[in-house]
Amino acid sequence: MSAPIIAIDAMGGDFGPRNIVQASLACLIATPSLHLILVGQAPLIEELIARQSGVDRSRLRVVNASEVIGMDEKPSQALRGKPDSSMRVALDLVANGQAQACVSAGNTGALMALSRFVLKTLPGIDRPAMVAAIPTQRGYCQLLDLGANVDCGAENLYQFAVMGSVAAEALGVVRPKVALLNIGTEDIKGNQQVKLAASLLQAAPGLNYTGFVEGDGLYRGEADVVVCDGFVGNILLKSSEGLASMISARIEILFSQNLLSRAVGALALPLLKRLQADLAPARHNGASFLGLQGIVVKSHGSASVQGFQSAIHRALIEVEGNLPQRLHGRLGELL
Amino acid sequence: MSAPIIAIDAMGGDFGPRNIVQASLACLIATPSLHLILVGQAPLIEELIARQSGVDRSRLRVVNASEVIGMDEKPSQALRGKPDSSMRVALDLVANGQAQACVSAGNTGALMALSRFVLKTLPGIDRPAMVAAIPTQRGYCQLLDLGANVDCGAENLYQFAVMGSVAAEALGVVRPKVALLNIGTEDIKGNQQVKLAASLLQAAPGLNYTGFVEGDGLYRGEADVVVCDGFVGNILLKSSEGLASMISARIEILFSQNLLSRAVGALALPLLKRLQADLAPARHNGASFLGLQGIVVKSHGSASVQGFQSAIHRALIEVEGNLPQRLHGRLGELL
Repeated sequence: MSAPIIAIDAMGGDFGPRNIVQASLACLIATPSLHLILVGQAPLIEELIARQSGVDRSRLRVVNASEVIGMDEKPSQALRGKPDSSMRVALDLVANGQAQACVSAGNTGALMALSRFVLKTLPGIDRPAMVAAIPTQRGYCQLLDLGANVDCGAENLYQFAVMGSVAAEALGVVRPKVALLNIGTEDIKGNQQVKLAASLLQAAPGLNYTGFVEGDGLYRGEADVVVCDGFVGNILLKSSEGLASMISARIEILFSQNLLSRAVGALALPLLKRLQADLAPARHNGASFLGLQGIVVKSHGSASVQGFQSAIHRALIEVEGNLPQRLHGRLGELL
Repeated sequence: MSAPIIAIDAMGGDFGPRNIVQASLACLIATPSLHLILVGQAPLIEELIARQSGVDRSRLRVVNASEVIGMDEKPSQALRGKPDSSMRVALDLVANGQAQACVSAGNTGALMALSRFVLKTLPGIDRPAMVAAIPTQRGYCQLLDLGANVDCGAENLYQFAVMGSVAAEALGVVRPKVALLNIGTEDIKGNQQVKLAASLLQAAPGLNYTGFVEGDGLYRGEADVVVCDGFVGNILLKSSEGLASMISARIEILFSQNLLSRAVGALALPLLKRLQADLAPARHNGASFLGLQGIVVKSHGSASVQGFQSAIHRALIEVEGNLPQRLHGRLGELL
């Protein structure tokens, strides 16, 4: 296999290119086979690179793009009005084979719209989905969709299940257990879409469908892939992040109440901080778009340097796992 | 005001009447004005009461009911097949004015169906909703619906918002901030029902509607009342409980890794346990049915003695706050 090349939208996100360039350079050092293409305002990016010493420029290109898509811009505007945006140019690099993946911390809606337009969906896929790895009591589960598709029919949920299963396999899970998120585990529970999707999944050959999972079952690690519509998934993900932050804040208060607890807290806090990062998966690890003819990873808009590194790392694993080709083959069998 | 009288379904829940009787006796001691009616298999209940000394029997009645509704029984079965169930008899006591509220840890679907049948909904209310107080960074928010209504139209969400607002007022919140749960805060975000409900709420006189709130905003305490359909609410609630349990488990592991951390953990664990109880609101505090011509509080099926006590306490506050009458008045103005 040739060396992996990943195109980075250096201008997306809440903090501009600084974190992104720093994370990119760190990834180049950590993975000696990796090549990166930083896309955006070249003079600005070059200046940020020049601050760092020992950069291996043979594995790092900078490609200029004159425009930037704002975090609040409408997807339709981004699609039609900005042909030379950093996001668009990075995706074009994937489409024309100069890179195998694109990572962006920019506007989610614009990234989804541009990805669909530039890369196209895989045959048989109506709508791409967003997936992220959620920590559970037993490891991780792939949760999808996380907000790309607000209203979903049973057929969409079925496709998400197939895509999530293949993605989990590419990440090393053997015969991933696939479940539908529901408000009960009995057959009569749930809305029409979920019930209908269950009957489709029961009949799917080669898929390890295990039935319904509830919100608490997800965190108990009852499934490797948990499927829901984008409205539910987005609210589950963000409320989990909010709850994890709240618990961290409360623990900090617990540990600052008196001298003894402060001493205890000083010992415990670094461990708790690591836990907190683990519990904010999309913020920390990024979310992957599934169902496209190419790899796109969305890093959180306010991701730290470490968070953006994790997003690049996820893209790298998907490149090495040949995810779109695998998906294409599996969808051919199942859809 | 006359002394509050609450009917207790002593047979519901996963653990039988023992926890429930114990919690009831503790509440009688804690609230000297409170009267309770324990409903269920009288000999069994009397035996459990007899184990405790100093019980004020002038404030405690036992009413016999020969049948028990199973936790897995279908609501339709419970409705038609068991006229002398403890749940039904407890609700009848509310309907005929012998009690002002009913508390049950039994089958949720059966309790909702029986409550609607026995107590009827308030004029203008299509469907009752389940609400619970969720801890936030600023205090609590009332989240509804928690699973009674899987598919909801805009009109239902509007009614939930009105009911949640009145419930929050009855619990002491002045001009409660009411928000719709959504996957973004911009007007264009969300599904049709949510967008339409937003326009209804913007036009509602006297309601402090503040717009959309996201999953993380809920835990930041951006609203006092958060409204969603029962599918989303149930998944949010259960996933939050699952996440809180997982974090507790991980913290326990952190604190058991070596001698120092074990010492630290021994100090921190009681505090963390209290936090955990606070983070499992429905399990701990119970959920209230809103929109009925009477007060019904559902305690979690696996509630501890303390958890069932909290459910009785919530019922007591709603009795003292005259919640159904207040709701009736407010709905007359708004619907």
